[in-house]
Amino acid sequence: MDEFSVIRRYFAGLTAAQTGVILGIGDDCALLQLAAGEQLALTTDTLVAGRHFPLQTTPYDIGWKALAVNLSDLAAMAATPRWFTLALTLPEVDEGWLTAFAFGLKALADNYGVALVGGDTTRGPLSLTLTAMGTLPSADLATRRDGAKPGDVIAVTGTLGDGALALQRLDKASPADADEAWLRARLDRPSPRCEAALALRGLVHAAVDISDGLAADLGHILTASGCGGLIDAALLPRSSAFIKLADAATANAQQLHGGDDYELCLCISTQHFQQAQALCKVTGTALTAIGQISAETGLRILQGGQIKPLAATGFNHFAASA
Amino acid sequence: MDEFSVIRRYFAGLTAAQTGVILGIGDDCALLQLAAGEQLALTTDTLVAGRHFPLQTTPYDIGWKALAVNLSDLAAMAATPRWFTLALTLPEVDEGWLTAFAFGLKALADNYGVALVGGDTTRGPLSLTLTAMGTLPSADLATRRDGAKPGDVIAVTGTLGDGALALQRLDKASPADADEAWLRARLDRPSPRCEAALALRGLVHAAVDISDGLAADLGHILTASGCGGLIDAALLPRSSAFIKLADAATANAQQLHGGDDYELCLCISTQHFQQAQALCKVTGTALTAIGQISAETGLRILQGGQIKPLAATGFNHFAASA
Repeated sequence: MDEFSVIRRYFAGLTAAQTGVILGIGDDCALLQLAAGEQLALTTDTLVAGRHFPLQTTPYDIGWKALAVNLSDLAAMAATPRWFTLALTLPEVDEGWLTAFAFGLKALADNYGVALVGGDTTRGPLSLTLTAMGTLPSADLATRRDGAKPGDVIAVTGTLGDGALALQRLDKASPADADEAWLRARLDRPSPRCEAALALRGLVHAAVDISDGLAADLGHILTASGCGGLIDAALLPRSSAFIKLADAATANAQQLHGGDDYELCLCISTQHFQQAQALCKVTGTALTAIGQISAETGLRILQGGQIKPLAATGFNHFAASA
Repeated sequence: MDEFSVIRRYFAGLTAAQTGVILGIGDDCALLQLAAGEQLALTTDTLVAGRHFPLQTTPYDIGWKALAVNLSDLAAMAATPRWFTLALTLPEVDEGWLTAFAFGLKALADNYGVALVGGDTTRGPLSLTLTAMGTLPSADLATRRDGAKPGDVIAVTGTLGDGALALQRLDKASPADADEAWLRARLDRPSPRCEAALALRGLVHAAVDISDGLAADLGHILTASGCGGLIDAALLPRSSAFIKLADAATANAQQLHGGDDYELCLCISTQHFQQAQALCKVTGTALTAIGQISAETGLRILQGGQIKPLAATGFNHFAASA
C-alpha cells in the first residue's frame, strides 16, 4: 500500500451520507447532483501553519478549524452546508498527526452532516485548502454583502474579541484555568453560525462572517451596499472570560480589529430585529444589536461620548508583520 | 489600497462571462446556478513549487499548468469546463510575477471560457490549489473509472512520455532547438483534452487522465472496473521530438511510468472505436489503440515478443525521492 492509500484511509470516515453525492472520493472528479432550482454556494479558504493557526495548535484543532472557517463563509450566505474537498500539503506522513487531524475534521463535519467528496494530498510545508459547498433551496435566498439599507440594525452573533485575546495570551495562559481554556477553544475550535444563519434565512438584508475583525468585515458590507454605519462601542458583546482577562489597553482593538471571531455580522430591518433575535435564541445563539446603517457613507463609532471615524482595517495576511 | 486589493486586480480579467455565475469574486461565497438536471463535476489539485513544476518554471507557465491539470480531470469525466477557484499562497507580493502568472492562467481559461469565481490569497511558501468545476447535461454521461468491460479497446490521446523526457532534459536542453522547446512546452503547458472528451461523450466506457503515468492511471481503471488489461509497448504513441531525443534506456519507463502527460486513457468498445477515432480527429487530437481490456485481472505488457506483468506504479508524491 502506498502512502497515498494510507492517507486516504484516515479520511474514509468523512465520506458520511449526504444527499446529492453521485460519486465521491476516488475518481478524477466528484459528481454532485443539485435538486431542481437549488443554488450552489462555494467558498475556498487556505490555512497556513503559523499564520492562520499557531504552530503549537493540535492536529485535532487544525482539522476542526480548517472546516469551521469555510462553513462560516457558507453561514454568511445562509447556505445549507453539504460537501467539501480537502487539499492537504504535509511535510511528512505522520500517522498520529493524521489520525488526530481527521478526528477533528470529522467532529465538525458530523455536526453538520457535510461529506468529504474529493481532495488531494501532496508533500510540502504544512498548509490546507478546503473548498466548502452549500446550497440554497431557491434563488434570492442568499445573503450577500450588498443588501444593507439605511436604518437597518447592525447585529452580531455571539461575542467578539475572544480569539484575538486568546492569541495574545497564548504563551502566558494557564490551561488549567477554565476561562483561559474557553478562550483558547474560541481561537482553535470556532463554531460556525450555521444554525443561526439558517434560522434567519429570508430575514437578513446583508451578512458577512467576521474573520478579519468587525471593522474590516462590516466595512465590506458598507462598501458593497454603498452606505455607512455607526456602531456603539458599549454594545459590543463580550464573553465573561473576555471581561475577566482582557487588558483595558487592548480590549477595544481586539473586539474591533482582532479577527478570528467567526461570528456573523448581519444587517436586519428594525421591524424584523426582535423576531430575528428570538429565532437566533432558539438555536442557542445570542444576537446583539451594535449599531445602525446610515445613508451617509463611512464607518463611525460612538465611544466615550464621541462619534469618530473607525478605520475599516483588520488582519491582512500580507501587511501583517507576524 | 492593501495588498489584497492589488492581488485581486491581477485576476479581474479572469472573471470572464460564463453562464450560471449569479455572484462571482468578492463575497463570502460564489453563487452558481446549474440548469435543471445538470450534474456538477468537481476536482481539486494542489501544485507545490519544486514538486509539481520545476523551480525555474516561468510564472506564465505555472498559471497555465495549474489550471490545465484541473481541466484534465474534468476532461476525464467528460464534463464541460465552467468555473474555478484559486487559492494562491505566495512568499511575497511580486507584481511582475503576478502579472505573468495571471496571463498564463487567463490564456488557458479563455480557451475554454472558464470563469474564476472565488479564491483566497495567503502568504507562505509558493503553492496553488485550484478547484475546477464542470457540468454534464444529464446524469449517466460522466465517464467514471469503473466502467471498463472485457474486450474494450484501451486507447490514449496524443503522445506519451514527452513531459517526463522534458523533465529529464531540463538542465541539458538547448531552448533554441525546436524539438527541445516543444518537449518543454509539453511539460509546462499541457493541453487538457477537453475537446476530445466532449466529442466522445457517450461513447466511452471508462476514462482517466494520465498524470502519474500510464501504468498507474490505467491501473486505477482496472482496479475500479474489476478487470485486467494487456498493452502493446510497440503501439505507445511517441512524438517526433520524443523519438529524436529519448534515450533507449529510459524511453520505455518514461512512456509507462513518467507522468505529467495529461493525456486521456480511454476504454471504448471495439465496435465504437473507429467512430471515436474519427470524432477525435475532428478536434485535432490523435487517438491511438494501445491494448485491450481482459476479464483476467492484472496489467500486462507485450514487449520484445513476450507478455509480462506490468507494475501499476507511477509518480508518488510521498514515495518520490526528489
